[in-house]
Amino acid sequence: MNDNEIIANIKCLGIDMIDHARSGHPGIVLGAAPILYSLYANHLNINVKDPNWFSRDRFVMSAGHGSALLYATLFMCGYSLDIDDLKAFRHINSKTPGHPEVGVTPGVDCTTGPLGQGIATSVGMALGEKILKERYRITSKDSLIDYKVYCLVGDGDLMEGISYEACSLAGTLKLNNLIVLYDSNDVSLDGPTDKTFKENVRGRFEAMGWTTYLVRDGNNLSELNRAINKAKNAKTPAFIEVKTKIGYGSLLEGKSDVHGKCLTKEDIAQLKAKLGVTSEPFGYNTEYIDYLRGKISERVDTKYKKSTEEYNKYISSMGDESKTLASYMFNNEFHYNLLDITWPMDEHQKEATRDTNNMFMDYLTHHIKTFVGGSADLGSSTKTYVKYSNDISADNFDGNNIWFGVREHAMGAICNGLALVNLKPYCSTFLSFSDYVKPAMRMSSLMHLPVTYIFSHDSINVGPDGPTHQPIEQLAMIRSIPGMKVFRPADVNELLGCWQVILNSNHNPSTLVLSRNEVERHPNTNPKMSILGGYIYYNEKEKLDTIIIASGTELSYARNIGYELATKGYKNFRIVSMPSIEQFLECDEEYRQNVLPNNVRKIVIEADSSFGWHRICQNNTYYLTVDSFGKSGSKEEVLEYMHYTLDDIKEKVFNIMNIK
Amino acid sequence: MNDNEIIANIKCLGIDMIDHARSGHPGIVLGAAPILYSLYANHLNINVKDPNWFSRDRFVMSAGHGSALLYATLFMCGYSLDIDDLKAFRHINSKTPGHPEVGVTPGVDCTTGPLGQGIATSVGMALGEKILKERYRITSKDSLIDYKVYCLVGDGDLMEGISYEACSLAGTLKLNNLIVLYDSNDVSLDGPTDKTFKENVRGRFEAMGWTTYLVRDGNNLSELNRAINKAKNAKTPAFIEVKTKIGYGSLLEGKSDVHGKCLTKEDIAQLKAKLGVTSEPFGYNTEYIDYLRGKISERVDTKYKKSTEEYNKYISSMGDESKTLASYMFNNEFHYNLLDITWPMDEHQKEATRDTNNMFMDYLTHHIKTFVGGSADLGSSTKTYVKYSNDISADNFDGNNIWFGVREHAMGAICNGLALVNLKPYCSTFLSFSDYVKPAMRMSSLMHLPVTYIFSHDSINVGPDGPTHQPIEQLAMIRSIPGMKVFRPADVNELLGCWQVILNSNHNPSTLVLSRNEVERHPNTNPKMSILGGYIYYNEKEKLDTIIIASGTELSYARNIGYELATKGYKNFRIVSMPSIEQFLECDEEYRQNVLPNNVRKIVIEADSSFGWHRICQNNTYYLTVDSFGKSGSKEEVLEYMHYTLDDIKEKVFNIMNIK
Repeated sequence: MNDNEIIANIKCLGIDMIDHARSGHPGIVLGAAPILYSLYANHLNINVKDPNWFSRDRFVMSAGHGSALLYATLFMCGYSLDIDDLKAFRHINSKTPGHPEVGVTPGVDCTTGPLGQGIATSVGMALGEKILKERYRITSKDSLIDYKVYCLVGDGDLMEGISYEACSLAGTLKLNNLIVLYDSNDVSLDGPTDKTFKENVRGRFEAMGWTTYLVRDGNNLSELNRAINKAKNAKTPAFIEVKTKIGYGSLLEGKSDVHGKCLTKEDIAQLKAKLGVTSEPFGYNTEYIDYLRGKISERVDTKYKKSTEEYNKYISSMGDESKTLASYMFNNEFHYNLLDITWPMDEHQKEATRDTNNMFMDYLTHHIKTFVGGSADLGSSTKTYVKYSNDISADNFDGNNIWFGVREHAMGAICNGLALVNLKPYCSTFLSFSDYVKPAMRMSSLMHLPVTYIFSHDSINVGPDGPTHQPIEQLAMIRSIPGMKVFRPADVNELLGCWQVILNSNHNPSTLVLSRNEVERHPNTNPKMSILGGYIYYNEKEKLDTIIIASGTELSYARNIGYELATKGYKNFRIVSMPSIEQFLECDEEYRQNVLPNNVRKIVIEADSSFGWHRICQNNTYYLTVDSFGKSGSKEEVLEYMHYTLDDIKEKVFNIMNIK
Repeated sequence: MNDNEIIANIKCLGIDMIDHARSGHPGIVLGAAPILYSLYANHLNINVKDPNWFSRDRFVMSAGHGSALLYATLFMCGYSLDIDDLKAFRHINSKTPGHPEVGVTPGVDCTTGPLGQGIATSVGMALGEKILKERYRITSKDSLIDYKVYCLVGDGDLMEGISYEACSLAGTLKLNNLIVLYDSNDVSLDGPTDKTFKENVRGRFEAMGWTTYLVRDGNNLSELNRAINKAKNAKTPAFIEVKTKIGYGSLLEGKSDVHGKCLTKEDIAQLKAKLGVTSEPFGYNTEYIDYLRGKISERVDTKYKKSTEEYNKYISSMGDESKTLASYMFNNEFHYNLLDITWPMDEHQKEATRDTNNMFMDYLTHHIKTFVGGSADLGSSTKTYVKYSNDISADNFDGNNIWFGVREHAMGAICNGLALVNLKPYCSTFLSFSDYVKPAMRMSSLMHLPVTYIFSHDSINVGPDGPTHQPIEQLAMIRSIPGMKVFRPADVNELLGCWQVILNSNHNPSTLVLSRNEVERHPNTNPKMSILGGYIYYNEKEKLDTIIIASGTELSYARNIGYELATKGYKNFRIVSMPSIEQFLECDEEYRQNVLPNNVRKIVIEADSSFGWHRICQNNTYYLTVDSFGKSGSKEEVLEYMHYTLDDIKEKVFNIMNIK
């Protein structure tokens, strides 16, 4: 069997898919096909019949526009894709979407598209292997958890800051199970890269502690294989620059036009002639598939069998609780009950929810084997650092605390990678810096990954760091991400309820927003009610006229105002605590109407932007929110300046209710 | 005069400020004081009496938590700050906010705080000098525009992806007017950097095409000065790694605790003793101020005089129009009228607003001397590439098209830098990738900078790239940024009105959101009305029952539905076009009530998230919006899948209006 003939067939399938869809990216199909072929034919430890085999090598197409190439290769390797799937490329509900989507296509390990996300997520997957091996005490002789992560990147990926952040950390942590292949073709979407990207890329990776290799001719399979073989044995993460020609063989070869435009019929004809492929569109040789399947089987079958045996042995060796955890690890389903535990909580203690949360972090670290995370150099402020666990480092992956460095964006993507290998990751920074994390948060949600984002310093109520550090619109930004659940607990009781939901959310990310300012434990808050997202904290004593809705530390305001209203003899108001709008929206209509009946006046008290509250308060609503930038000053000064002291809010509520 | 005595005084003032505020960052004050002293005493071309002198060297404290050090140094140089200003450090409405804020403190050239923003903005300021020199034909002998940009960074800045992105571009563009000093102390907020950041930083900068220097002892002033002198003559951007000790002289020297915690009284006492400073808190020696002022004057006076003369000569040599432009450049005020121009627009032409916009880009490039910008490698898709202008490159700054590379985040921050030196910059990518730009957009707004963000592919209506490329929540995210104005024009008429507002907004950023799908020119759209942000597109013929509000390309839906309603004989509905909610909110209450009277049923049609519409539609509102992720498929398939075809929307409107 001639490798180049198979590669030619893969290329033509990719080009046919793009032509059929009238949309796609031919440049990378023609330029990088030999790279993917080499990987799948000679290196990746995978099982096409069991694409979710836990110990498989991962492949991440960070240059997600190379989806046609990836699907054509997966098809040729014998994954469960047929020619109709390839014909449905970029069409609705197909197994072959415009950019790779995990969970949609067998063999796709990560959703990619926004450049840089794939490589940063790969770092998380590689880090995950190191951590899992320690957690499950896997030795070098075992196959239960033993994989490498391969990632294909283009120039665009490497220009993105997130890729730099993640790769710098990968170098620091010496992740030698990560191999990045760089499709180096000197061209990006708009033109030649010498206009934008003249750095010595390998030099940069060496400076970051990676081992680098150069493949001078990306069409030379033996040169490619030699480099990959060396990379597999490197003591650090490995970076292979492969010089290729974008659109190789097309009339547009080497030009940026071939990046994302369909080839003309003439071009396709001459290309196929050049490649010696005479078949009709979507023609393929089944012998090639048999050959590739055979090569993969030959390489992997023994390891797969061993790994499966170890899994069975591992599972049968353990008690029921551990089984559940193991099951989570391998099947990504997880159930945990925090509510029946007795927590050592002082009724009258005043503390910031970030501090209260630290107690939960300790507990979860000790009880949940897959719980792991860290912060972007703010653990001492967000209070997510777990004191009683070890730090993860190049020399020790047996710990809970990941030091992400000041790399918020990569932190999010790395957590996506950790979640893709079935860990239960969290990460943290200040709420105002969630801006930097947002693109990765969106990816968590798109991939249905149970990543927990923990943001402290949740409003202008943060002290004198000034407007750059005071979140305003961030809470709205995060709540607006489809599928993301946001929690802003008022105290320890609500925090408990929030964690209960977060831990049992296996298919969506969560955001936990914590305060720097101290709060009391409220008499009427309740973990079980918090799970509903919103509940009646204080009930009216007479016919309902006004509902005061508050979240997080602003529940203290509502409670204080309620106390004063009651003292004045008012009985027509209700207080609703709303730790999670998203949870509340999942309750049935009857419950929601019961808590927030239509056509009753509503007052929302939340020291962040008003955006998004329309989802539960559409009529006759007043927003006592903060919709303009903060200010530098002491906490008290800032609240006064922003007209957000308790007295200010009380006055506003009284005005709305026509109380003097 | 002994330099070290002055440095000791600066350090003590910084420490006193932090102690007085009970908040701040002593570590950098003690570690980096000699760096700032060297710069201000021996290098920066500034005029403390004219802090906004256009041709001054810029200094950006990218490590914004070093604000106390910066203010103490500015005070000592004789800027208009007195000791009470220092005492008001971190208090409300002071000249000395928690992190540096441009426009608040004389001598502060850039707002900093979120790490990485400062250095990326510095790249923009340096690029701006190169561009301005060409635009105003400044020769190497002139002083009118002739400055360098100095920037102090810490480890945190350099871990941030945005700093990598910006510095990689600076290397490609060989910005030799940029000098970055790296306060290299091996410690960040949470602990030693060997846990997070073990790369060879100078090696990385060399790989990016920078010239690098090492100062082994950051307390050795002559070593510092030698390095800075060399850096000034480098042919590329220069990077000086200065080895320092965080909290030098404190009992916590070298420890991460000294980063952001006040020193104890004991520590302050021993520190002052060590430094030989015996004065009371906030004590200073006026001779030091005279000495520093003298040094700066001696160095700069001739250049300042020459520069001022050239400015006067330049202004007097030109006609009125040019004067206005020059005035804009030097004073950052700009007025332009697009409305009286006759545009060559075909009444019936169907085209995407991204294409229509390209015509405006051409016009503005030719007529507005300070207009400049580019895209993050998507100019051919966003259609912001100006074909009739040159590309900016290391060899040629006489052009309009900046090739930012695939670096969305740095692109935003670089535009902030361009705007800080009074250019009128724009940048562009797809709306879904605005996620990557968001942190810089917030900074634009905080600094009141007239940056224009142009995002095309503005809804699920973008074709088959799939959910990663289909914006949902991004429009809401951007609208939620305080001070940001967002425009989503329906056609060429509205686009004209939007640009009229954008060009005349001198103190806030704008976002222009454009479509990939084609639209007709609507018969009733109107540039002048568009300026109001929202206006009646079609008036009811009978008593008003329902208002249909639409923006952007969804105005076509509204128009079509309106046509069908009218055909059916309905006369009780109104159509409102809403290209800019923010502009509409600036109209007086009477106008707004006239367009959108209270208590009338409203239906919002916008193919993006519903978040934020509550600002103008609080009661009795129905949202026909898109609040969940998109899908890969052809445009038509996606609209059908998302129930957002014209027929879908029509049916929903009819249902709401109880029409069969």
